[in-house]
Amino acid sequence: MPDLPRTAAGSGPSTLLEGSHGGFPDHDVAVIGGGVAGLSVAWRTARRGLSVVVVDPGPGSGATHASAGMLAPVSEVTYTEEPLLRLGLASLAMWPAFRADLEGESGEDLDYRTDGTLDVAYGADDMAYLDALASFEESLGLRVERLTGRQCRALEPMLSPSVRGGLLARDDAWVNPRRVVSALLTALAKAGGTVVAEHADGLAFAGDRVVGVRLASGRIVGATSVVVAAGPWSPSFVPGLPVRPVKGQILRLRGPEGFLTRCVRGLVHGAPAYLVPRGDGEITVGATMEEMGFDGRVTAGGVYELLRDARELVPGVTELELSETTVGFRPGTPDNLPLIGPLTGVRPDGPATPEPGGGPAATPEPAEGVHGASRPAVPERLERGPRPPDLLVATGHHRAGVLLAPVTADAVAAFLTGERVPEAVQSCDPGRFGR
Amino acid sequence: MPDLPRTAAGSGPSTLLEGSHGGFPDHDVAVIGGGVAGLSVAWRTARRGLSVVVVDPGPGSGATHASAGMLAPVSEVTYTEEPLLRLGLASLAMWPAFRADLEGESGEDLDYRTDGTLDVAYGADDMAYLDALASFEESLGLRVERLTGRQCRALEPMLSPSVRGGLLARDDAWVNPRRVVSALLTALAKAGGTVVAEHADGLAFAGDRVVGVRLASGRIVGATSVVVAAGPWSPSFVPGLPVRPVKGQILRLRGPEGFLTRCVRGLVHGAPAYLVPRGDGEITVGATMEEMGFDGRVTAGGVYELLRDARELVPGVTELELSETTVGFRPGTPDNLPLIGPLTGVRPDGPATPEPGGGPAATPEPAEGVHGASRPAVPERLERGPRPPDLLVATGHHRAGVLLAPVTADAVAAFLTGERVPEAVQSCDPGRFGR
Repeated sequence: MPDLPRTAAGSGPSTLLEGSHGGFPDHDVAVIGGGVAGLSVAWRTARRGLSVVVVDPGPGSGATHASAGMLAPVSEVTYTEEPLLRLGLASLAMWPAFRADLEGESGEDLDYRTDGTLDVAYGADDMAYLDALASFEESLGLRVERLTGRQCRALEPMLSPSVRGGLLARDDAWVNPRRVVSALLTALAKAGGTVVAEHADGLAFAGDRVVGVRLASGRIVGATSVVVAAGPWSPSFVPGLPVRPVKGQILRLRGPEGFLTRCVRGLVHGAPAYLVPRGDGEITVGATMEEMGFDGRVTAGGVYELLRDARELVPGVTELELSETTVGFRPGTPDNLPLIGPLTGVRPDGPATPEPGGGPAATPEPAEGVHGASRPAVPERLERGPRPPDLLVATGHHRAGVLLAPVTADAVAAFLTGERVPEAVQSCDPGRFGR
Repeated sequence: MPDLPRTAAGSGPSTLLEGSHGGFPDHDVAVIGGGVAGLSVAWRTARRGLSVVVVDPGPGSGATHASAGMLAPVSEVTYTEEPLLRLGLASLAMWPAFRADLEGESGEDLDYRTDGTLDVAYGADDMAYLDALASFEESLGLRVERLTGRQCRALEPMLSPSVRGGLLARDDAWVNPRRVVSALLTALAKAGGTVVAEHADGLAFAGDRVVGVRLASGRIVGATSVVVAAGPWSPSFVPGLPVRPVKGQILRLRGPEGFLTRCVRGLVHGAPAYLVPRGDGEITVGATMEEMGFDGRVTAGGVYELLRDARELVPGVTELELSETTVGFRPGTPDNLPLIGPLTGVRPDGPATPEPGGGPAATPEPAEGVHGASRPAVPERLERGPRPPDLLVATGHHRAGVLLAPVTADAVAAFLTGERVPEAVQSCDPGRFGR
């Protein structure tokens, strides 16, 4: 278990906001949601010297808990979705440094692995699909290798004898998302961040301005800026936000170490199936994609399909322990791209109006003197620059929350501090769907 | 939760046996094992006025916890095993009175249902098998009806459209084994029985005579007679007893009430599969049969096969919640018949010698004045008759523990009190395999 950051739960109602919103708020930034997105945002923001609080009754218990943690932007997303692909590649490129920082600051091992993904095919159709994928990956400058069935089985002896060929993506990586959460909580605490382990009930307003987070207990956590990173529950804080739950059922098996050494993927019955091995012998098998709202049931059909598909790829899984069945809710958006950036016009009873042009992103004066210092003083911009946005969102990451954590965190930190926002994030303007 | 009988755990070491085994033991009967067999024995014995203690750290947590609770001797056992069939039919005939007594004394509802079993077939081979089964059942005087596929689906609309025909056994019954355990614990407490919620470590001896149960804590529970009803763990108390664990994986689904109204069975991929509905919407799907020793893992393959088979019988199960996966260990014997009766010659370090002829069963003087009284005084036979056996076993019930509980309980009580032992139990002589 990680050292949990000290929690402010139960420390009594804040009086800082009473009577006036002109007083000093409790925090620079309050993040609603302690999944991998919210915690990454909080950590990277706290690292920049801002005082940060995360509000979540159980950090890491949402989609992140279910997630397989693949860092595989090309094979994971539909490769015609180019903005998402660019975003994923940008974040993948940030992962080695993100990981090194996070492991260094937390002292924890993320089980970050870079042994590559083996995408396998059974029939001629599957092979044609993999060929097209390979050409596309090569056009992006990614290293891929076309393999025969025999070559596939030489790499992964547990593969089904009916595998006809495959594609080895040597640069694909993966990580244990539960360890990432644990490390983020430790690193956040070291950076001075706190966690309020309570349910957030809504935004707190002073007039039209967001001034904090209202807890279910009635207490208000005051903040100059609030980041809504509540995954599929985000619309309960920002009415009308186009995020919906996409139910996923996922299994964990437990086998001998080395049962698989790479991520193994394949199209089975037309649906993508994958097996992700961990250092401790765990194998994550995923995942269903279901438009079922917040239906938290593990179903007979979901488990059946996952086991059936895993068995077709790697018949020997039948001998492994089925150690866990989990349901998670991915935060889906209409175009599968996340929503990252400031929002304006959210009122106590009304919908938000997105800030044109992405707000502070357009600010041409990146703050200086912020990078590099591990715990710098509050950046001067907060004293002298334009007021930071009072409300931002960082959600809608769908299947790619773990992959996109670094780019999301740095983008939100940039929006908050006036740094330059990563270019790939421009496609994630929360206002792109209108109102 | 049931009212647990008062427990003697932690009440300090017994001194009754110290120095001599001629003193008064703590109890007339100590039963090792609180599964459905042990608790039934304890309850029926306590009802006859004997002081009874059950030693089990978690009554009802073994095979009974996993069990589906079918009371279907004909369709459940291989129907060429005639002694087992006769034993099952004898016990089935006792179930209505056993149930009425148990529900009456405990005030608990066993979810005892008598809506029958529908055994379905897909192909011509399956139909031929069901025809032969029907003829056999008819020869036993059991009511069975041959049905067309259409008639099957009229009875159970959720059945697969590919079902070609079936056999309706209207007399088959089933019960919720977990409720049976709960009711037995309540009824046992009302009859003055107790439960010691500790691990039994072995038998306690005075010379060659068994005088009680040695607990893991070192304490001894003294008893005139000890009944080993520890399922597949029985050989650790009686070395050499031919009982082995037969692993079963079993699932519980949760659906709307009335999803199925009868037990549905079928041969799928050559293995018998069944779905047992409960009044609360639970559907038990079983069960694997695995010679894996005490391997307590739920496996990917086991769950896969159960879901696959259930889906072939009743496709709509895919929409139901998978609420539980359980592993149990049936106590198997070489001939699938249980071991019920006295044993002699068990020594602190050696194997048992079965008592020839079944011991007190052969006693031609059944005790009188015992029947009917709800809590009679200690039967006179205990004062004046032959000494009751010091060691008995009641285990090896394999797939049929719940079905065989009434006949087992009455047989053991008869061995203890000198009543006439049910004839069908003669096939269960624990010494039939020699030593």
